[in-house]
Amino acid sequence: MAHQRAMDTLYPQEHSETLALIQRLVEVSRPITLGHFRSDPETETKGSGRGYDPVTVADRDAEAAIRAILEHERPADSIIGEEHGTREGTSGWTWYLDPIDGTRAYVAGLTSWTTLIGLAGPDGMPVYGAIACPAVDELYLGWPGGAGLLQGERAEPIAVSPCQDLRQARISTTDPFIFTPAEEGAWTHLRATARISRYGLDAYAYARLAAGTLDLVAESGLKPWDVAALVPVVRGAGGLALDWRGRPATASGGQLVCAASRPVIDQALLALKRSAE
Amino acid sequence: MAHQRAMDTLYPQEHSETLALIQRLVEVSRPITLGHFRSDPETETKGSGRGYDPVTVADRDAEAAIRAILEHERPADSIIGEEHGTREGTSGWTWYLDPIDGTRAYVAGLTSWTTLIGLAGPDGMPVYGAIACPAVDELYLGWPGGAGLLQGERAEPIAVSPCQDLRQARISTTDPFIFTPAEEGAWTHLRATARISRYGLDAYAYARLAAGTLDLVAESGLKPWDVAALVPVVRGAGGLALDWRGRPATASGGQLVCAASRPVIDQALLALKRSAE
Repeated sequence: MAHQRAMDTLYPQEHSETLALIQRLVEVSRPITLGHFRSDPETETKGSGRGYDPVTVADRDAEAAIRAILEHERPADSIIGEEHGTREGTSGWTWYLDPIDGTRAYVAGLTSWTTLIGLAGPDGMPVYGAIACPAVDELYLGWPGGAGLLQGERAEPIAVSPCQDLRQARISTTDPFIFTPAEEGAWTHLRATARISRYGLDAYAYARLAAGTLDLVAESGLKPWDVAALVPVVRGAGGLALDWRGRPATASGGQLVCAASRPVIDQALLALKRSAE
Repeated sequence: MAHQRAMDTLYPQEHSETLALIQRLVEVSRPITLGHFRSDPETETKGSGRGYDPVTVADRDAEAAIRAILEHERPADSIIGEEHGTREGTSGWTWYLDPIDGTRAYVAGLTSWTTLIGLAGPDGMPVYGAIACPAVDELYLGWPGGAGLLQGERAEPIAVSPCQDLRQARISTTDPFIFTPAEEGAWTHLRATARISRYGLDAYAYARLAAGTLDLVAESGLKPWDVAALVPVVRGAGGLALDWRGRPATASGGQLVCAASRPVIDQALLALKRSAE
């Protein structure tokens, strides 16, 4: 009950039906993803035939559980998932699912992997997003005009940092070694300018940007199911989400830069635009 | 009581006095380090004169609290801390303290920062170590012949993974951009060979190596207070801790490579030895 009351004050009534459904999706996937996390290496090598791959099993089963609920509750919506493909709907609304983002972190027993759920409108613009971090019991939610962090019984609004200068910024990208040469040049420029650079966080970086402890995240090669979940959280927390040309990010994926403020993102775009797709 | 019983079965009686003291040091530092973590950015800019730097305050205050206990309980031991310098003792035993390892993670609101406590014998060899991760409530302990993970009420022994081949290994280093050119060449070789590479974990990488979800960690430029805490945890869990020449690691710092097995570390040393100090 305390949890429900906390929720009611976190977001406006008009968003509560969708956000409650998203929380239900997070809850159903949580025991599945957590159940295979840091599993005994002995069990991995046992089992039949080709052996047991915990992240693949968890990813597939968690998405199936989420889809079962969505197909019942939102039969007219489209669903695009990393594991089980696309279901075409008729409502114009599309759910984007990635049950385990950050599979390398998951496989290495690190807590930064997330479950991503996004909902985009008929114009392809992400409207609702969830970045769930089961291993640390954090759920970041974004909706039009707001964002919040749920931890156990606590629910509180989140906001991006007041950072206005790239030289003061804490920045992040997932893998500095997968950039194209042009992108790598842009990243090197950002890294040389910023205060602190962090790697390997996948979607968790956007969650911490929304919560005010990172100031800029730039990545390329993103999938629609990544972007659709991240963008509403970042925007709801007062941040900016653009492609590397400086246009508002859509659910189509590709290059993404998110930042706490216009001055920070403008300084970054000076470098990023030169390697924009 | 349940906690105490769990402890009693985790490690042999002969180590319980020292390990209980280490747990007390972890407990006293925990509210201090956690109290400044993810603190409100508004508070950071307020305050008198030069402003408030949460990580510096937490680091300094936590080490002072740990030292106060050690000075009372172990007055004859030496203490070497990152923040408050060296106190010379007479027993031949030396405590190494780093209240916040991973300050960049701490400043970026990421949970991988740790509190490091190590105890080395008269020959300079680390004997007891603790890697405490307050933000995720994990405490990794190492002693001669064993290692364990404490989480809330649970206490369980940990062991390195069965990995025997660098090509299957999950490897990590904290910052691939601070290596010398020769070291960077060695790291590039490891990265190209291994299955998964992760960055930015600081001491937490060694904790996860000990717990079996990473298979190799290689770093340079380490401080004595890093190595002294890490090595007993890795060795206690059945792993190897060497310098880049392949000699057993001591508490002197510098280049360190830890791995789950002899074949993995030998394959890595083929590359690392070429850039050994």
